[in-house]
Amino acid sequence: MVMIYLDHAAATPVDSRVLKAMEPYFSRDFFNPSAAYLPAKKVASDYEAAKATIAHAIGAKASDLVITAGATEANNLALNAIFASRSGSQSPGPSPRAGAAMARAAALRNPPSQDANIALYLATEHDSVRKSAERCGGAEIVVDKFGRIDMADLKSKITDATELISVSLVNNELGVIQPLAEIANLIREIKFDRLRRGIKTPLYLHSDASQALNLLDINVARLGVDLLTLNSAKIYGPKGVGALYVSHEVKLTPSTYGGGQENGLRSGTENVPGVIGFAKAVELAHEHLNGNRKKYAELKKLLLSNLHGYELINKKHALDNFAVLCYNGIDAERLIYLLEEKEVYVSTGAACAASKGEKSHVLAAIGLNDEQIAGSLRLSLGETNDKSQILEAAKIINEIVGSEYGRVSHE
Amino acid sequence: MVMIYLDHAAATPVDSRVLKAMEPYFSRDFFNPSAAYLPAKKVASDYEAAKATIAHAIGAKASDLVITAGATEANNLALNAIFASRSGSQSPGPSPRAGAAMARAAALRNPPSQDANIALYLATEHDSVRKSAERCGGAEIVVDKFGRIDMADLKSKITDATELISVSLVNNELGVIQPLAEIANLIREIKFDRLRRGIKTPLYLHSDASQALNLLDINVARLGVDLLTLNSAKIYGPKGVGALYVSHEVKLTPSTYGGGQENGLRSGTENVPGVIGFAKAVELAHEHLNGNRKKYAELKKLLLSNLHGYELINKKHALDNFAVLCYNGIDAERLIYLLEEKEVYVSTGAACAASKGEKSHVLAAIGLNDEQIAGSLRLSLGETNDKSQILEAAKIINEIVGSEYGRVSHE
Repeated sequence: MVMIYLDHAAATPVDSRVLKAMEPYFSRDFFNPSAAYLPAKKVASDYEAAKATIAHAIGAKASDLVITAGATEANNLALNAIFASRSGSQSPGPSPRAGAAMARAAALRNPPSQDANIALYLATEHDSVRKSAERCGGAEIVVDKFGRIDMADLKSKITDATELISVSLVNNELGVIQPLAEIANLIREIKFDRLRRGIKTPLYLHSDASQALNLLDINVARLGVDLLTLNSAKIYGPKGVGALYVSHEVKLTPSTYGGGQENGLRSGTENVPGVIGFAKAVELAHEHLNGNRKKYAELKKLLLSNLHGYELINKKHALDNFAVLCYNGIDAERLIYLLEEKEVYVSTGAACAASKGEKSHVLAAIGLNDEQIAGSLRLSLGETNDKSQILEAAKIINEIVGSEYGRVSHE
Repeated sequence: MVMIYLDHAAATPVDSRVLKAMEPYFSRDFFNPSAAYLPAKKVASDYEAAKATIAHAIGAKASDLVITAGATEANNLALNAIFASRSGSQSPGPSPRAGAAMARAAALRNPPSQDANIALYLATEHDSVRKSAERCGGAEIVVDKFGRIDMADLKSKITDATELISVSLVNNELGVIQPLAEIANLIREIKFDRLRRGIKTPLYLHSDASQALNLLDINVARLGVDLLTLNSAKIYGPKGVGALYVSHEVKLTPSTYGGGQENGLRSGTENVPGVIGFAKAVELAHEHLNGNRKKYAELKKLLLSNLHGYELINKKHALDNFAVLCYNGIDAERLIYLLEEKEVYVSTGAACAASKGEKSHVLAAIGLNDEQIAGSLRLSLGETNDKSQILEAAKIINEIVGSEYGRVSHE
């Protein structure tokens, strides 16, 4: 029995080429990039080159990136734009040192009213965006039944106080792609209108692209984003590394204070092997974009045509490596354990939420009722899968679902 | 010519046994620890076991540790105790969600006066402590000429508003060991006095033990610390991983919001290979404590008896793997480049400060004048060194220093 892993949206194995690229930086090239001697400077230069590789893949420069410990930290840092923007306009603080702290203080001194909508985020965003946004006067944007942004709802919720809109490029549970360029156009209009009316509040577009780098050709200018979150661990790179793209217009308060690394926005000795590996993973993903798209389109078609008795939840606008299936009346949690016995690994949604027994807020947001949510499985395809695996997985899922339907109908 | 690396306080190579321990978690055991199926739960359990290994080495439990991306993040998180402590006593916030934000707001709404001394830290602390402390009413504690804390100065600076005292166990530039147990005793007295007078302000002892884990047998209870920072990258573990020990008494605001990992204090998918490697490094360090102490005592003696024309700066209370040498009248920056040509790698102080051309605040704090600071080298010994290397390094340093003194006297 060979493991069939269908949870690539939760984690991906590190590609052997990625690990190979990292290895020298654990041992031979272990130096602190800030040290003054030549071998350390070589490490610093390799680190910058790796950042440039990551940046170039999204049409940006190395200096536009802040390396983080992952997408969660990047999302948290992105939301710091709100604290930072407040410091300039309201209170610069008594000293440069205390500036950041005073910025936070200023941001929070007059807690925004519930209608201020300072940070707008999609109802289907990951908790790292939702919880960060909730800290500073956040409000949800409604999605349609496919999980796509309701542009009318977005328009109606943008106030003169709105500073940041966070919409993931690809949702982590549905694989749904959001029309970022359309959102960026709306933002441009609003900014123009604000300028005309002399309103100085900034308005930034942030997007979590953690799930997108394998299958979409991302360009920050084309997408029109000011802040973009990238994640190594979802694209066959190492865990514990991510990045935030920050456009020149955006001011951020630092995520950590100290040695001043990452343009002072994220102090701490650089995770050199991690970033080298991240860059290699980005390079590989970028090279295989077209191949991947074709591969997953075929595999998804094969999967869906061989499975029985499900309703496809993410019918439109979804990446081909995501299939969300609803087996009405069945307990998907039970399916996971039954499939586990056959070494088929799937999930009901985001791992971090599922592990706490939380109902998926994403499936609720697209209008599924509790029974439908309880019966939903997320299958996310990836590099470990091939056609024979997909056929085998479909067979096993059909069998188990069939016997579950039998069990349920006899109860 | 073989490289002689004498900058182990800046970075250490990953031990081959550490890398070997990490390897399966990049590929075979790559699963998201939060996922529901068995192989992921096995990863989660290995991760917890690794945390337990790290925790046990300091006399703590896995649940007492918050894993971070390194010592800088851990130090920043430790200082969050100040924001958290304010939330309970002043304003719990309008909703649990907004609690942390309101805690920060409450902490900063009435900016503390310059004399409040809310966070006291040693004048020789790393920037990650200094800059974090400065954000919330920090004040420096004076050190003596050896770099040891001036207990009288500490006593005089503790006010009823003081909430946190941060003193590194071992200083990163001098290797000087601080008398933490003595500080903890003073804190205990003050807490008892506060209790008697009905003052509810908490008082925590934080210590950055980044440089200590290789040579000191650390026990949080014996040291009397409430918060302790650990660092993987300084003990032959991977970069990008650290931990903060948090005693049950301490309330912290999270460093990131999201999936709720690390008891909700630091969200984000766990860096499993990093933590497995960190644990292996801790295990190895702990096993070789006595051997290391003996080895470095011998190497340092050999080094100092073979070098000429220096003044030893860290004469007392220093770990044996640190030697800070002052060559009066010589430019140590030049020495670094001249030594680099002979593949001998040393530093003038903390890499992150040195790279920005900043004068060492540590050497200034122990009373060195600008000329002495400019002439000071930090040699930090480590596992890559042996006796023949030390003799060779001493010979090369003597030659270069000699010709520099010649050059200087001819100018």
